[in-house]
Amino acid sequence: MTNWKNLDTLDAYKALEATKGSVDIATAMAGENGGTRVAKYNVPMAAGLAYNFAAKQVDDTVLEKLAALAKESELVEKFEELYNGAVVNTGEKRLVLHQLTRGQLGQAVTADGVDKRTFYAEQQKRIAEFATKVHNGEITNAAGEKFTTVVQIGIGGSDLGPRAMYIALENWAKKNGTFKMDAKFISNVDPDDAAAVLASTDVAHSIFILVSKSGTTLETLTNESFVKDALAKAGLDASKHMIAVTSETSPLAKSDDYLAAFFMDDYIGGRFSSTSAVGGAVLSLAFGPDVFARFLDGAAAEDQTAKNTDIMKNPAMLDALIGVYERNILGYEATGVLPYSQALSRFPAHLQQLDMESNGKSVNRFGEPVSYKTGPIIFGEPGTNGQHSFYQLLHQGTDIVPLQFIGFKNSQLGTDVDIQGSTSQQKLCANVAAQIVAFACGKDDENSNKRFEGGRPSSIIVGDRLEPEALGALLAHFENKVMFQGFLWNINSFDQEGVQLGKVLAKKVLAHETEGALKVYSDMFNI
Amino acid sequence: MTNWKNLDTLDAYKALEATKGSVDIATAMAGENGGTRVAKYNVPMAAGLAYNFAAKQVDDTVLEKLAALAKESELVEKFEELYNGAVVNTGEKRLVLHQLTRGQLGQAVTADGVDKRTFYAEQQKRIAEFATKVHNGEITNAAGEKFTTVVQIGIGGSDLGPRAMYIALENWAKKNGTFKMDAKFISNVDPDDAAAVLASTDVAHSIFILVSKSGTTLETLTNESFVKDALAKAGLDASKHMIAVTSETSPLAKSDDYLAAFFMDDYIGGRFSSTSAVGGAVLSLAFGPDVFARFLDGAAAEDQTAKNTDIMKNPAMLDALIGVYERNILGYEATGVLPYSQALSRFPAHLQQLDMESNGKSVNRFGEPVSYKTGPIIFGEPGTNGQHSFYQLLHQGTDIVPLQFIGFKNSQLGTDVDIQGSTSQQKLCANVAAQIVAFACGKDDENSNKRFEGGRPSSIIVGDRLEPEALGALLAHFENKVMFQGFLWNINSFDQEGVQLGKVLAKKVLAHETEGALKVYSDMFNI
Repeated sequence: MTNWKNLDTLDAYKALEATKGSVDIATAMAGENGGTRVAKYNVPMAAGLAYNFAAKQVDDTVLEKLAALAKESELVEKFEELYNGAVVNTGEKRLVLHQLTRGQLGQAVTADGVDKRTFYAEQQKRIAEFATKVHNGEITNAAGEKFTTVVQIGIGGSDLGPRAMYIALENWAKKNGTFKMDAKFISNVDPDDAAAVLASTDVAHSIFILVSKSGTTLETLTNESFVKDALAKAGLDASKHMIAVTSETSPLAKSDDYLAAFFMDDYIGGRFSSTSAVGGAVLSLAFGPDVFARFLDGAAAEDQTAKNTDIMKNPAMLDALIGVYERNILGYEATGVLPYSQALSRFPAHLQQLDMESNGKSVNRFGEPVSYKTGPIIFGEPGTNGQHSFYQLLHQGTDIVPLQFIGFKNSQLGTDVDIQGSTSQQKLCANVAAQIVAFACGKDDENSNKRFEGGRPSSIIVGDRLEPEALGALLAHFENKVMFQGFLWNINSFDQEGVQLGKVLAKKVLAHETEGALKVYSDMFNI
Repeated sequence: MTNWKNLDTLDAYKALEATKGSVDIATAMAGENGGTRVAKYNVPMAAGLAYNFAAKQVDDTVLEKLAALAKESELVEKFEELYNGAVVNTGEKRLVLHQLTRGQLGQAVTADGVDKRTFYAEQQKRIAEFATKVHNGEITNAAGEKFTTVVQIGIGGSDLGPRAMYIALENWAKKNGTFKMDAKFISNVDPDDAAAVLASTDVAHSIFILVSKSGTTLETLTNESFVKDALAKAGLDASKHMIAVTSETSPLAKSDDYLAAFFMDDYIGGRFSSTSAVGGAVLSLAFGPDVFARFLDGAAAEDQTAKNTDIMKNPAMLDALIGVYERNILGYEATGVLPYSQALSRFPAHLQQLDMESNGKSVNRFGEPVSYKTGPIIFGEPGTNGQHSFYQLLHQGTDIVPLQFIGFKNSQLGTDVDIQGSTSQQKLCANVAAQIVAFACGKDDENSNKRFEGGRPSSIIVGDRLEPEALGALLAHFENKVMFQGFLWNINSFDQEGVQLGKVLAKKVLAHETEGALKVYSDMFNI
């Protein structure tokens, strides 16, 4: 068994504190030494990706102390306990098994009387068979016509991750002949969301996926009834157009209201569910089961790297350690995620949930308040759009914001134009390379308004092309980074009690059981 | 003439510092007094909106000191100088006239030998005539067929603002019979962006708007050539499908390559350009000139409120003052923008640019470094989606993040379902009301993991329904808030020198004039 201790009680952490301010990246990244550093501070990932941290405020001494921290925190051992089935989600007394949805990292894990890897693999297989029948026309609408669209109804983790993954591969799949069906998403309880999606959807040729682990999520059931109304108005039998992704114990599991039901369980947190049936149903229907399998392979391969005790071979652990160094020792409060890829336009929104919901906590695993900062604010937008927007503050604002770039050598579609001697893809890559150096090194100027201080740290994940394996690896990298950071902070990254109070008070408003401020706000909205 | 002084040199600021920690909102918002407070701390805006700041960490004493700060900073007087044509953008030595694109707030402003209000109104009129001819079928494609789609090609301010406004009114316009044409946007230099938009666009029936003030923005010209290629491949004459929005002195202004050109000028910053021809062309084509005129009317009416010296009648100034209080005295580093409206899904991204690009500065108007924090990080996502995502950190994380909610009593489309005794719209409104109180008051619990500290400040802008006037008022509110905060920080909110260094280095990469770190990164991307 490992020891769970607060970060600030560890000797290695105290040793690390002494290194604060020891690395000036403006100097380290300058001249020929800068080039050497970029080549050296590069860690291979799965699917041909690499994590480069040359522009972070670390050097060999800091890395040595980060390695000592990893060891004293027993990060890899804790990961081992997790994938071997320990009750790591202590708040809800649950196992944490999302890695098992894509591979077997350690010993067999039995829960609810079954082997869990077998269970998840079986669901993937059932989904693959169902999707293939839909694509083949063996499963059709009542008129015998093929389904052309799949609509996911879910919120939070049942929405952001699968949506981000769909957007990431949509154009790639179209280009590569594996695009099977359009996917759409209904999530917000705002009635304008469901109404607008349905107004632009050919419901007669659509399969709707209701995603709710408990089968009782109010927003999702509300949106389901929107969909049922639309199907009824079109004279269609809803039960021939809907499938469920839920737990085996939910009221949806065996209901005749659904064409089929595919299962996840309590050991897959919503924000970690993209590789489970939650992502599997919609992505397999949209792109075919083979593409989804390739996505899982990439994630599984990346998970393997997270088992390495050597920080230079464990990119997620290193990324996590550097993030904690920046948060707790260097004192930075936010992290920007900046993919230079339009396909990753909603990836930052997914990471925002993944990271902030997992590690936005103030008490440790034993319920004791921690006396250090935990998860940072995560925000971001794709590449050059951000450059023409909020990068002003990142370059010249009064706070330093560590950055996480992502870039690919090649575009997904391969359609390009040559203007002023370079392609768009070359311009895109030139921009991200330039930004890293601009943030790190800055530039002096007589006019202080045009002066760039530099010393602003960033890392970059570089890949060849955003394909399913690379996307899976990217997703797993961040899931594992968030997990390792939770271990370092000694918090439970797998519950979300902070979302409960709002739900309780909203119910009071709807039941008109309010007084004081809540009543006046309710009146303001004529509720 | 007003006096431009650093915030920390003002007597009123020193007086304000003494109030730090004096207001406990968990107490202030509790019980019947909480209700009184919500009713009292409410400032009317234009278009039926109201700014409610009851859940902010202020009381009558703090408000009195904020009023004194507004007076000593001469905020309203500085605004008056701005709209009367002073060179407020000192870095670029330019007037700042975006308010003139929607109304005349003060005396006539002459620049470049013309009356500027007349000039902007004339462009609006020319756009309206052009749009009407397109809608009537007087201007058609070469085959004499009506245009059905408009595609905006622009980046940064030429993209985010107009795109957010289009999304905000798209469904409303469809519902209300004023929807004329689909609008699409190409912005990123990523070739996959342009390729994907063009692949899903019927170019033969599309008008493309090239937006570039200088006519030389590399990203925009690159994307223009993507479009020209697509038109040429379809056997179409590009000059019959493209219009330009540019300055009168740009190479695009009189080029035969465009069907028409509409003008803005150097006095309209990109991020403030939604009410100029930059937003006007695409929104007038999409929704008709009357809808665009209503949007401008809302903005103009809101601008009028920003002239009031009384902080309780000037919502933008009050919002600005509270924001500075939170940033500089209470020490908060970020602000979340959380619209409970799917239609405002991209409004936070627009505000992110507006605010961070304007006020992410470290030197004052005289080029001297300031010794206090300026613009915060801005991030956000729509309503209940955020609740199921990053709200965990907002409720229970180790940092306090001030929040700006936006909500409407009624949905745009009016299509709704009643589930468990309430409509979706009621659930949506109940949620935002509940969140404000949950953040402010918190809740104790024996289990520390389920404990909510409270004391987390928020404000809300409440409206009846998101229609063009309300959207205009909302936009103007934030533009004016950002302006007033720039005045308080004594910085120039209207330039963006921080985006230059990246551009310079990217050119070096493309010219292969690199060494050291930049060369190794370039090699990594095979540039």
